[in-house]
Amino acid sequence: MTKASPLKIAIAGLGTVGGGTVHLLHDQAELLAARAGRPLALVAAAALVKPADLPLDGVTFFADARDMAKTCDYDVLVELIGGAKGIALDVVRTALERGKSVVTANKAMIAHNGIELARLAEAKGGNIGFEASVGGGIPIIKSLREGLAGNRVSKVMGILNGTCNYILTTMRDSGRDFADVLAEAQALGYAEADPSFDIDGTDTAHKLAILASLAFAMPLDIDSVACEGIRNISALDIRYADELGYRIKLLGVASVSDQGVETRVYPAMVPLAFPLAHVSGPFNAIVTEGDFVGRTVLEGRGAGARPTASAVVADLMDLATGRVGPTFGLPVGVLKALPAAPAGAHRSAYYIRLMVRDEPGVFADVAGVLKAHKVSMEQIIQRGRSPSEVVPVVMTVHETDEASMLGAVKSIRALASVTDLQLIRIESL
Amino acid sequence: MTKASPLKIAIAGLGTVGGGTVHLLHDQAELLAARAGRPLALVAAAALVKPADLPLDGVTFFADARDMAKTCDYDVLVELIGGAKGIALDVVRTALERGKSVVTANKAMIAHNGIELARLAEAKGGNIGFEASVGGGIPIIKSLREGLAGNRVSKVMGILNGTCNYILTTMRDSGRDFADVLAEAQALGYAEADPSFDIDGTDTAHKLAILASLAFAMPLDIDSVACEGIRNISALDIRYADELGYRIKLLGVASVSDQGVETRVYPAMVPLAFPLAHVSGPFNAIVTEGDFVGRTVLEGRGAGARPTASAVVADLMDLATGRVGPTFGLPVGVLKALPAAPAGAHRSAYYIRLMVRDEPGVFADVAGVLKAHKVSMEQIIQRGRSPSEVVPVVMTVHETDEASMLGAVKSIRALASVTDLQLIRIESL
Repeated sequence: MTKASPLKIAIAGLGTVGGGTVHLLHDQAELLAARAGRPLALVAAAALVKPADLPLDGVTFFADARDMAKTCDYDVLVELIGGAKGIALDVVRTALERGKSVVTANKAMIAHNGIELARLAEAKGGNIGFEASVGGGIPIIKSLREGLAGNRVSKVMGILNGTCNYILTTMRDSGRDFADVLAEAQALGYAEADPSFDIDGTDTAHKLAILASLAFAMPLDIDSVACEGIRNISALDIRYADELGYRIKLLGVASVSDQGVETRVYPAMVPLAFPLAHVSGPFNAIVTEGDFVGRTVLEGRGAGARPTASAVVADLMDLATGRVGPTFGLPVGVLKALPAAPAGAHRSAYYIRLMVRDEPGVFADVAGVLKAHKVSMEQIIQRGRSPSEVVPVVMTVHETDEASMLGAVKSIRALASVTDLQLIRIESL
Repeated sequence: MTKASPLKIAIAGLGTVGGGTVHLLHDQAELLAARAGRPLALVAAAALVKPADLPLDGVTFFADARDMAKTCDYDVLVELIGGAKGIALDVVRTALERGKSVVTANKAMIAHNGIELARLAEAKGGNIGFEASVGGGIPIIKSLREGLAGNRVSKVMGILNGTCNYILTTMRDSGRDFADVLAEAQALGYAEADPSFDIDGTDTAHKLAILASLAFAMPLDIDSVACEGIRNISALDIRYADELGYRIKLLGVASVSDQGVETRVYPAMVPLAFPLAHVSGPFNAIVTEGDFVGRTVLEGRGAGARPTASAVVADLMDLATGRVGPTFGLPVGVLKALPAAPAGAHRSAYYIRLMVRDEPGVFADVAGVLKAHKVSMEQIIQRGRSPSEVVPVVMTVHETDEASMLGAVKSIRALASVTDLQLIRIESL
């Protein structure tokens, strides 16, 4: 294969992202060929049904993606079917077994099977591109793997799920409650009929596991990601966040220290001075802390046909021009598992919203519990009085270790006058 | 040269960035070798005086960088001397003539001589990396050239000069005036004794020309960059910006449309909803609009020893692993000059601050002039009355073409009661 010969591409999956990728390869063919020094040629595509509205003239169509992966003559298979296992994993394995390269937008598959696939690629001489798996069109994988290659990264965190960010942004803009906004997002097609994958943080966890592996040169470890979603965020919390100078965002946070590595997904209060506070609607953003570069922030559209296609094609361009390397920045054998940071040692400030019966002495009880657990209060908001009714009391507490905080929370929940308790981390800068 | 043989590096210039780069190569040697699959070996360094505090054991020292460039055995010369011509250009030409590669942080040299150097690299087989020339540690060159390679970019704009951003941020935070904050910045070493290069926009213009060339696949054209600096921004304007919901930022803006290409540097009112409004102090940020990816924003430290060293080493890692390509993303022969957009056709909203003698009829005169030039007023701020004294009157006007606005400004300046006029563009989203 000379350098000017076309890069032969087979796409498995012609849904939203597959369609966007076909359009991009078609619309920008000339530009891509000029930049790569060779054509990017779509030679085959597979889907259950051939879409009538895609420019697929001259492209061999397969109704069976496995058949295409096995028999077709291609240089790179683009997997846009989705799902951690099943057909997606089958076609990717087949392509790599054949020594071909793979480009994928499939975060679930990479998060669960990335190491096995990277090993296979190393053994057979193919390469794996997965820029589209995290952050849609944001070139975050390339930035972590190449642009910041001179750094030891201590932290990578971000807003990684556009559905959650849309819901939280809309809740704030409209003052409406979670269930209401979720139902609307489902009606509009912004959220799935079964929204659990997004709103319970699973999707964010997949992406975070991938970022952590790249950032810390460790094997993928999806099972260690602690995961809380946004179901419990109420309109009341959003309102108090505003009043206190925060935005509530679903974050994926991975950090490494002498204590070990932590990967967590949780909704957090983000200070307005922090760039992530201003990332709204369908946008994603990723903050990285490197020992030389300091903090960088990359923001862009986190999903959608065209942004994701942009990332898929960036990987194809790298393959076309030979800008390739180990899947996770290092050969699999060199990736080193890191110890998990001890549970409860994580330090954070917190927002606590109590629903309490407005009775004498309640506040003294709560303050006593916090004191007993050495948790130091920063501020408290309690408005008016409604004797013997249930009212919200909101507090923020200074940075403390998680074990102390959870101990205090347990004791506060046990107080007879406390009917509900909401605990949200406050992200520090 | 096998892949596992070291990449031999010679550094010309051991100032701030040179020192940072030496430290990075020394401190992270093991990490870099693992990631590149081969050692990055600093074999030679040149400076007028050998700094005592750098880890240069085993590194051949040259007091004459030209001598090093000519005689030393290296794979890549890292030019960190600075200046568009002189020694910097000499050593880079020498290295490229010898078929070696070059990595540089020198935006002035790239902006003025990038095409000549890219041609030389193409002819002799070397490569040129200049990630460090724009945006410090932000991987913006790599993102534009590779990460967004599937896109036609219509706009690239950013906060590209940390000194100006520091001055404008400090003016806002402290309420102090430009000259005062500049003097302090000079005393603190954040601004040069001769600050013109930064505050008059020259540095931003160099960086913008580089970004525009990459974004629009056109040859560098530094001479076409229209350039206004921040000397005329007063504390009063900063205060009004705040009141109107803007931040004043020095922007470099390059855009391309059917009308042609525009590259401009100017201070602008940036709406708070726009990510650039929140980029403060020494940070830089670059916004890119691509036809598939949509808007992306990259933010990070725009200068300094360590962030810039991070970018220099990213280029070295690309060279070490063979991730190379044409300097400006396309061979020089394929870059195509674009027509300049017609003067005066640029459309923008504007902020206008008049200093007027508080006399009857002044406002009617101003309104009449705007009407005559078909400029439509959006809002006006005039506080209290101070008969026959000079008072500020602030207006914003709806989007209009620049020719109309400048025509109106000329007529307003000619009014007897107007003693001063400040005109600042309002950046649209």
